[in-house]
Amino acid sequence: MYKFLITIQLQPDTRDKILAAAAPVQAQTRQEAGCIAYDFFTCTDDPDRLVFIECFESKAAHEWHCEQDYTKTFIAFHEQFHLSLTFEVILM
Amino acid sequence: MYKFLITIQLQPDTRDKILAAAAPVQAQTRQEAGCIAYDFFTCTDDPDRLVFIECFESKAAHEWHCEQDYTKTFIAFHEQFHLSLTFEVILM
Amino acid sequence: MYKFLITIQLQPDTRDKILAAAAPVQAQTRQEAGCIAYDFFTCTDDPDRLVFIECFESKAAHEWHCEQDYTKTFIAFHEQFHLSLTFEVILM
Amino acid sequence: MYKFLITIQLQPDTRDKILAAAAPVQAQTRQEAGCIAYDFFTCTDDPDRLVFIECFESKAAHEWHCEQDYTKTFIAFHEQFHLSLTFEVILM
Repeated sequence: MYKFLITIQLQPDTRDKILAAAAPVQAQTRQEAGCIAYDFFTCTDDPDRLVFIECFESKAAHEWHCEQDYTKTFIAFHEQFHLSLTFEVILM
Repeated sequence: MYKFLITIQLQPDTRDKILAAAAPVQAQTRQEAGCIAYDFFTCTDDPDRLVFIECFESKAAHEWHCEQDYTKTFIAFHEQFHLSLTFEVILM
Repeated sequence: MYKFLITIQLQPDTRDKILAAAAPVQAQTRQEAGCIAYDFFTCTDDPDRLVFIECFESKAAHEWHCEQDYTKTFIAFHEQFHLSLTFEVILM
Repeated sequence: MYKFLITIQLQPDTRDKILAAAAPVQAQTRQEAGCIAYDFFTCTDDPDRLVFIECFESKAAHEWHCEQDYTKTFIAFHEQFHLSLTFEVILM
């Protein structure tokens, strides 16, 4: 398994734009054979922080996810609102 | 550094009880000399899932945190609402 | 009854240290009035995964177990070898 | 997700026959699109107790697993050695 978290610090007041676009991408991703979890979280005391917790069966399954059009479109959309992004691997 | 995430699946409709108790504990914890982050997150599409992302300067700093009365009281309070809990270490 | 399982992913090659310490703690715990089961399991194809399956007469009986010195000592010992831990409740 | 554990009490000295047959069935099952976990565990102080911890994306995914020939063959094989079997659902 390949599990990681992505912490995004957003430009103020942009979070809801991302969340409005998230649901269909989550539905499609969760149907991928190699996707175990693809969950999004909002910080309880910072409205401009988002965390994605993603788990795939393998690094290859994550790469396949990254190559899908819906993934590319979603990343291009939310990237325009980032101030910073941290990618961290969870020990398994 | 010692960084980890705790994912809690809650009994239905108990999340807000925990969040109502969280703010003063977060304020106290963030004042600890060894605390780097002590942030809470709610899942965007499951109201019964909570994630705590915690970072301490060392394992010893986390142990000191766990020995404080406000920590013990907060854990005893939220534990009564758990269905499951996962503790995972973040690779640093 | 209060029955749950704890799944522990260990740092490599630490399992036998925990198992060497387990037998006397199991003997003491099984003598508790409120303990119904306190059994440990090793994964057949991952030497670094341990499962504890525990059943107590009530949540209160489990809390009493957690307050005993032998329990606290055993937890402090095995915690130092964890990569991740999942606590899950079994439907009764 | 649909997660459960199966605890099997075996006729004495039959465990190794089951484990010798397990690896190829685990490999096939883990390749199922709907399989999240299919792990086997042995009790540290009872050589005649086995636990299977299984997680599927849905009840339907588990039903599909049960209809495969390799699953039917494996169940028919290990069932002949059972003294008792307990099936328990894990709360999610």
